[in-house]
This record gives sequence, structure tokens and C-alpha cells, in this order.
Amino acid sequence: MAAPSQVTFACGVDGLWHVEAVERVTGAALPLAGRLAVLEGHVTSDVVAWALRGTTGHQRYTTRAEKGALGSVQPVLGRAASRCASLIPIRKSDAWWELAQDERRAIFEDASHHISASMKYLPAIARRLYHSRELGEPFDFLTWFEYAPDDASHFDDLLAMLRATEEWRYVEREVHVRLQR
Amino acid sequence: MAAPSQVTFACGVDGLWHVEAVERVTGAALPLAGRLAVLEGHVTSDVVAWALRGTTGHQRYTTRAEKGALGSVQPVLGRAASRCASLIPIRKSDAWWELAQDERRAIFEDASHHISASMKYLPAIARRLYHSRELGEPFDFLTWFEYAPDDASHFDDLLAMLRATEEWRYVEREVHVRLQR
Repeated sequence: MAAPSQVTFACGVDGLWHVEAVERVTGAALPLAGRLAVLEGHVTSDVVAWALRGTTGHQRYTTRAEKGALGSVQPVLGRAASRCASLIPIRKSDAWWELAQDERRAIFEDASHHISASMKYLPAIARRLYHSRELGEPFDFLTWFEYAPDDASHFDDLLAMLRATEEWRYVEREVHVRLQR
Repeated sequence: MAAPSQVTFACGVDGLWHVEAVERVTGAALPLAGRLAVLEGHVTSDVVAWALRGTTGHQRYTTRAEKGALGSVQPVLGRAASRCASLIPIRKSDAWWELAQDERRAIFEDASHHISASMKYLPAIARRLYHSRELGEPFDFLTWFEYAPDDASHFDDLLAMLRATEEWRYVEREVHVRLQR
């Protein structure tokens, strides 16, 4: 892993991805607009409906064993068949961030099985996590998913599974931006 | 803990703190200048020798038990007697960031005793950690220390202890900015 890479999701009239829907899951929604561009770097623009910035980074909870298991099945982004994508910005509550590392890990994996339960959706669903909290952004994380149209129902299963976990009780804002190209 | 707070350390001709020395510890140094200002927010300026930005955040390795123990002895910043300060920007190697969470924790505390060995220097030395890596800054962390002149030798002991740890083998750049007010 090299230095963190910075990305801006800019939603407006330009971009590779056509916005199918903006779904409010928890808390305030985001405005609907026609297209979404994934831009390198942290850029600002006056001509977009909204822009969210994030930075890739090291994995915060994954153990060596999990990292090895994930590495063997984790697909890359940009596969030709992946004509569907989802951007899911999430903000967790102060109660989450006040927890100690061992407490967060226990909820994340021991109770919620975030890693192990997600693995059965690999390699169908490609995923990349961007961190936003340190940037002073309105969300803590931006998760980007890519999958083939035939795997859309598996993707919805993955979301339902995650949203039923103990971890998700700490999610105070969540929006689902459904995209196609 | 509220939302992360953002800070800029701006070194030039203005600021509360007089720069006593800029010491190169590992890797490239920073230019020497006369004074240092601690500014709220992430600001840019053309009139400073250098500016480093950071964001406070949740603790990455601390367990609940350690967090409780630290909370009971950790002093606040800004004590009247704390006329000495040190800003120590640090960058860790790619090898560190490629480690999994359990491996980093094992090096951080189990092997290097970063938390437990630092605790004997509390409450003499007040400390605050700022994260910079996600901001695309040249350093990963900025650590700010405050202490009374009489405790300066204890502070040097703390630095020597940390620099001798296994964790510090992953430090590829470190600068020590010594300050007084």
C-alpha cells in the first residue's frame, strides 16, 4: 500500500456514472442529480449538486489472518462486467468514536461479523473504503461498491445483513446512491 | 469526544511560541524560523516558513482499560507552568501501514509499551496527538507536548525511551521542534 489516495465523488451533470436513485437510509439525504464523477484528488467545484471527499488508508480492524483471507478473494475495481455501482456515505455516532479500540473491534467483528459475513459476497462485489472523518467532511466513511447487474440482489442481501448488525446501531446517517454505467 | 478538531502549526515570525531549536532526528529536517503559532482550522499562508496540519481523532490502539487509566492522569494543555513545548512530526514507513491492526497493536503496546511506559511521565507532560496522514500531509502524525522547564529532562527521557522501541524502527522521518513561551 502506497500513500493514501484521495478521491472526490462529484454529483451533478457530468461523470461516467448515471444516478439511478438517491435513497435516504438514516438521517438527512443528499440531493438527487443526474450523474456522478469519481475524480482523483480533493477538488472543489461550484457546478455540482454535492461533492464528497475521502482518502484510502490502512485497515483499522482487520487482523493479519483476515487480511490474508480477504486478499485472496477481493476483486479489483473497474471490471468490465461491473456496470452497477453504489456509493454509500456513512456517519457513525459520537458514542461509537468514544469507544476504545478493543470495544470497536469487538462490535465490528466479534458481534457483527462485518469481515467474515461480507466475505461470502466476494468476489462478486468489489468494494473500496474511503475515510472522510479526519477531513472535516459530513460523513465518516464513503464506501464504493461495484458489481454486475446479475449480482444486484446479492448486493442488496449484503446491505440488509450489515444493517441488521450491532455495529449499524451506531450509524446515525446513511445515504445510498445507486449508479449505473 | 466531539467531532475532530483541526489545527495548523504555522512556523514563521508570528506566534505565542519562540522556536528554540529544530532538530533533525530521522530523514529530512524542517527549516528553522523564529516563532510558531498554533492556529485553529486548516489554514494556508504564504508568509510562513512551513505549516503542518493535523486533526484530532479517536484513539487507534488504546483499550478500554488503558483509556480509563490514561483519563485519570492525563493533564490538560495550557497549564500556566507549561512554558516549554515540543512539536514532533513523525512519518512511519509503508511497512508499518501494510501491517494488520493486530500486528500494529502488538508492536505498539505489547512489544514497545508505548502507552504503559509513557504513563509514568504523566501528569508532568501533557500531550495531544494530531493525525495528518489522511490529509495528504508530509507527516503521518504531529505530537504536541507541554511541560514545565523543570520537567525538561523527564521529557528527554520519554523521547529516548520511545525512540528505543520496536515501534520506532518504523519511523522514517522525525523532526523535533523545541519551543518556549
